[in-house]
Amino acid sequence: MTRQELVANIKRKKSFLCVGLDTDLNKIPEHLLTEEDPIFAFNKAIIDATAPYCVAYKPNLAFYEAFGVKGIIAFEKTVKYLKQNYPDQFIIADAKRGDIGNTSQMYARTFFGVYDVDALTIAPYMGEDSVTPFLQPLSLPHEGESHKNHWVILLALTSNKGSFDFQLTEDKDGERLFEKVIRKSQEWANDENMMYVVGATRGEMFKDIRRVAPNTFLLVPGVGAQGGSLEEVCKYGMIEDCGLLVNSSRAIIYADKTENFAKVAAEKAKEVAEQMKGLLNLS
Amino acid sequence: MTRQELVANIKRKKSFLCVGLDTDLNKIPEHLLTEEDPIFAFNKAIIDATAPYCVAYKPNLAFYEAFGVKGIIAFEKTVKYLKQNYPDQFIIADAKRGDIGNTSQMYARTFFGVYDVDALTIAPYMGEDSVTPFLQPLSLPHEGESHKNHWVILLALTSNKGSFDFQLTEDKDGERLFEKVIRKSQEWANDENMMYVVGATRGEMFKDIRRVAPNTFLLVPGVGAQGGSLEEVCKYGMIEDCGLLVNSSRAIIYADKTENFAKVAAEKAKEVAEQMKGLLNLS
Repeated sequence: MTRQELVANIKRKKSFLCVGLDTDLNKIPEHLLTEEDPIFAFNKAIIDATAPYCVAYKPNLAFYEAFGVKGIIAFEKTVKYLKQNYPDQFIIADAKRGDIGNTSQMYARTFFGVYDVDALTIAPYMGEDSVTPFLQPLSLPHEGESHKNHWVILLALTSNKGSFDFQLTEDKDGERLFEKVIRKSQEWANDENMMYVVGATRGEMFKDIRRVAPNTFLLVPGVGAQGGSLEEVCKYGMIEDCGLLVNSSRAIIYADKTENFAKVAAEKAKEVAEQMKGLLNLS
Repeated sequence: MTRQELVANIKRKKSFLCVGLDTDLNKIPEHLLTEEDPIFAFNKAIIDATAPYCVAYKPNLAFYEAFGVKGIIAFEKTVKYLKQNYPDQFIIADAKRGDIGNTSQMYARTFFGVYDVDALTIAPYMGEDSVTPFLQPLSLPHEGESHKNHWVILLALTSNKGSFDFQLTEDKDGERLFEKVIRKSQEWANDENMMYVVGATRGEMFKDIRRVAPNTFLLVPGVGAQGGSLEEVCKYGMIEDCGLLVNSSRAIIYADKTENFAKVAAEKAKEVAEQMKGLLNLS
């Protein structure tokens, strides 16, 4: 999906909500456990209920991998279901991958070739040649050229406590690691194929982020269960074409554990979307 | 596997070689492609041939995930095959994971619970709470307490060119990021449950590594196809109980592409092991 298409969807829906599909068999309503594929059954119901209120879905691979082959099948089915039924939804595989060049190439082939998601989260620690394979056109045997309009979403300033350990380390010139990650990575990519993860738990930090990344989209986790403020994120982080995808996972998908779970998830997503509508300032 | 057991295996075999199972359908001998599970068939043959000369195997998950569900099944079968037939081999899942606490916990459950590998590579960018879930005992429903003698192998100084981008950044006090990663992470873990990835392409850097990590095991990629020198690594990095696992992937497993591939892989592994025997200095 291009940036233009993503922004058009945000304008049309007046929402920049991303719903995180962190689907955990230990947390989904019990009545689903008798289904043949409970993970997919849960996702399908959540997607059908929340799609009007969001523009993106973000399955976190950890939750699927935890259930081995069954989990991977459920992930595949979820992506296919989204692509077939909701082609206007931006699909983010939250996998936080990153490895040496030839290995990152394999990951690119997996996520952009096999699954064909729109975006993949990447950890920056290993530097340029661990990231750029995700930005290059990929020739897939028997499938022609793929890998168009795919995005890297690089971890910059995450929402967890551990982000203080390394991401805020200042170098000799006073540049913090997350700023260096953003600055350097813009030499490898552009605003049409790279976004950054910036946690909502640091509202005021969005000012600093916008200094180094004035025009890029940001994927913002940490609103909801993790306690970030949507108002602060928008106040300091929103740009002309919005430039934000704000993710909520647990606060929406696990809002209710009864047979009503999908209906309640829709209500929660609608609440966030209405708040977003008031904060959006699009021409 | 405990450190003591690992060291005993190194002493017995006079080798600290780890064979990287970066199994790529596009690179394995053609005659295997007619097998029902070519990836596993290749791994099984490589393992049977090279096991006498190594103490560890390191499948890189990227290569398995690239083939979707089939790849994951091949990974599972490979781990099971190793555990059943070569219980003295240390199994490293090279996955470079790392996420917020509850998500890292899912990954821990996958790799240490479901697959029960000995060690998992982790990216440090997200800090303490992304790493510690891999160090804690994990209670697995229906399986009792597992997660004993499992290891985190944290990326410190990688072997690729991109390692210059961030890992060598000096902070105000002159401490480089990879040194900070090692120093800080030793507050969360100890020499019995944490190792570090240090690329062989920087032989002389092992002096600096040993200053901050005098007693930890190091997993060393970059010997072989990536051009690192085994002598230099040992000169600067070896400690009393060896403290090194040196990995070679492509130079061993793809040394030959004919029906002789396993035999040639064994010869290559044997060559490295003999070189190691000369460099080992164990009491």
